[in-house]
Amino acid sequence: MKALWKTESPEPDPATGSRSLGIVETREYTFAGPLKLESGESLGPVTLAYETYGTLNAGKSNAILVLHALSGDAHAAGFHPGEEIPGWWDAMIGPGKPFDTDRYFVICSNVIGGCKGSTGPSSVNPRTGRPYGADFPFITIADMVQAQRHLIDFFGIDRLLCVAGGSMGGMQALQWVASYPERVRSAIPIATALKHSPQQIAFNEVIRQSIMADPAWRDGDYYATGRPEKGLAVARMIGHITFMSEKSMEEKFSRRLKNGRLGFDFGADFEVEGYLRYRGANFVKRFDANSYLFITKAMDYFDLSGGRLIRGKEIDTRFLVLSFQSDWLYPSHQSQEIVRQLKRKRVDATYCELKSTWGHDAFLVELEGQTTLIQHFLERTYSGKRNGNGNGNGNHM
Amino acid sequence: MKALWKTESPEPDPATGSRSLGIVETREYTFAGPLKLESGESLGPVTLAYETYGTLNAGKSNAILVLHALSGDAHAAGFHPGEEIPGWWDAMIGPGKPFDTDRYFVICSNVIGGCKGSTGPSSVNPRTGRPYGADFPFITIADMVQAQRHLIDFFGIDRLLCVAGGSMGGMQALQWVASYPERVRSAIPIATALKHSPQQIAFNEVIRQSIMADPAWRDGDYYATGRPEKGLAVARMIGHITFMSEKSMEEKFSRRLKNGRLGFDFGADFEVEGYLRYRGANFVKRFDANSYLFITKAMDYFDLSGGRLIRGKEIDTRFLVLSFQSDWLYPSHQSQEIVRQLKRKRVDATYCELKSTWGHDAFLVELEGQTTLIQHFLERTYSGKRNGNGNGNGNHM
Repeated sequence: MKALWKTESPEPDPATGSRSLGIVETREYTFAGPLKLESGESLGPVTLAYETYGTLNAGKSNAILVLHALSGDAHAAGFHPGEEIPGWWDAMIGPGKPFDTDRYFVICSNVIGGCKGSTGPSSVNPRTGRPYGADFPFITIADMVQAQRHLIDFFGIDRLLCVAGGSMGGMQALQWVASYPERVRSAIPIATALKHSPQQIAFNEVIRQSIMADPAWRDGDYYATGRPEKGLAVARMIGHITFMSEKSMEEKFSRRLKNGRLGFDFGADFEVEGYLRYRGANFVKRFDANSYLFITKAMDYFDLSGGRLIRGKEIDTRFLVLSFQSDWLYPSHQSQEIVRQLKRKRVDATYCELKSTWGHDAFLVELEGQTTLIQHFLERTYSGKRNGNGNGNGNHM
Repeated sequence: MKALWKTESPEPDPATGSRSLGIVETREYTFAGPLKLESGESLGPVTLAYETYGTLNAGKSNAILVLHALSGDAHAAGFHPGEEIPGWWDAMIGPGKPFDTDRYFVICSNVIGGCKGSTGPSSVNPRTGRPYGADFPFITIADMVQAQRHLIDFFGIDRLLCVAGGSMGGMQALQWVASYPERVRSAIPIATALKHSPQQIAFNEVIRQSIMADPAWRDGDYYATGRPEKGLAVARMIGHITFMSEKSMEEKFSRRLKNGRLGFDFGADFEVEGYLRYRGANFVKRFDANSYLFITKAMDYFDLSGGRLIRGKEIDTRFLVLSFQSDWLYPSHQSQEIVRQLKRKRVDATYCELKSTWGHDAFLVELEGQTTLIQHFLERTYSGKRNGNGNGNGNHM
């Protein structure tokens, strides 16, 4: 594989020596399928959008699969032409960065059900010639991972060095181990859970209800009539509250007024209101409401508790499990439950709860704590060493 | 005043000896006003719905004003004819109960801006002959309290023995002390705050956006065309998530399925989804969307921080401040901030954080812990004794 980053890449970071990947591009891989889905339905043909960074070595032993969260996409790092904002995990992926593209071949795959180049409800249904809409089959996290397995097969990679991701990306990482343990040398699930609690389901349900309450949703059949923008904007506003913490909101907004005084009307008086409105309005430009419905449902259905994470007796996959102190959407006790399940099966697992006031957003923005841990974990995995303390027991439990 | 409860009241509770108030009725008090509002606008005539329980003594020294939360009403205790569910604080108010109607005269007043018999956006605007709708003037917690002061004047009560309430009821209790300190002998603010944090504002803002996103809202002018039921239902669902705790949801719902299996559709798969849908659908039958908008805005505007709670030098009002451990909507640190403000002004204040897994709902359902504290606090206030430890210092800080 040819690396996608520009040879004329920008100047290195003076502090770390790391460099940007420069210009990257999203590609598509299509296979006929049909995928046999958990619901019993099938889906095909299937397209997956993906990006790759770095070079696959001759032994195909340096491939890392990076997995994105609910509204993410395949563009994890580097820049698309003409854009000033890099991919969503750019600080983590690149030459000299934790996912070091001088050593590793990094793949980021979009999920089925999404709207960022992969087959989803806004794709054309080959049977009708019109967008699937609500006729799109229900998909699960296991279905997403099954589709990604086709992409990894396409690369001819027998065994991934690592699967890594935060939030729903962490669910996919866990599902990779559950579905294909022999094909994963290590996994880094971050700020995630074995299953959604009723509170997490509740937030997703209100998000869905908000979309479906918009008359423009029309039971999902809105691609020719106009999208349910208001419902989706409110849905995303709910999401943003859960991504932050009480403290990070206090630090970022306090009770500061947008226009210096109370308006005594239903406009945005406080900066936090303006922020949420802006985030909601922006989101509808870049995301499809039906995708939000299908993907949140896939997250709610996800359940690898009760021994479903590690089914076999012996498993060789190593784990680095990370959570963040102020994350109340995916609280640390959920990550600790992952580690407990692993320990019960004598799996080599390191756990760390990182300090942060950023809430769930921490996995995207609280980089310093993650950087060293991930870097060393990958190095030791790649060089065949076990976890630092020899017996595979995690710390910080 | 004549007591409103039936003389032939039901059998006493065998454990506590307390009795139900039996049948009660909501009354209305109308005054011309106009009320001069904080916004600069004015409102008149003004009607307040209220209920009273017990008998006002000759010296008018035994009156307690009970204040309700966001969606509450004047019906705090006893039964309305033909109804099987008593008022919202029935366990706390009645003969032999903490707010003991054998000793005290309890008044519960509805708020202006509401839709439960008091002047609000669904009332007829005397200038147009049509419902106010969004033309209703913006009201604040101080405006609500100013209206209640007219009701207390009507009863000829110079000084209330106590003002008490939870959540927005607690805000009104605090505002009573801020606005009319000489007319309040004691206050019991429960599960409340001196001001909303940006997270609390954010939840209210998303609630408002959900209502206003419903095309049926029509800028508040919907009384002749049909109410924004879908938007209001989603708004209330958001509220219910914040009223519970992660733990109380886990205990109540876990991941139990509604129909024994996953539906692979957008129906309610999990019991928690069914609960939220039920709560949302029920709420639209009993509450007005415009009232929800105006009242949440009043809560967000409320701010008695920075010395605004106690303006004078000497204040004789005693406080019992209560919060609940699992309440993340009005977390204990907000109640502790109230107590800090009181201590700074050398006000006699007792604070207690009560154990509970119920989240914010605790103030309505976690009765055992509140009962004794409130009972003793009222007894000592009524008999003129100070707080138990002599120096007025709270405990449990």
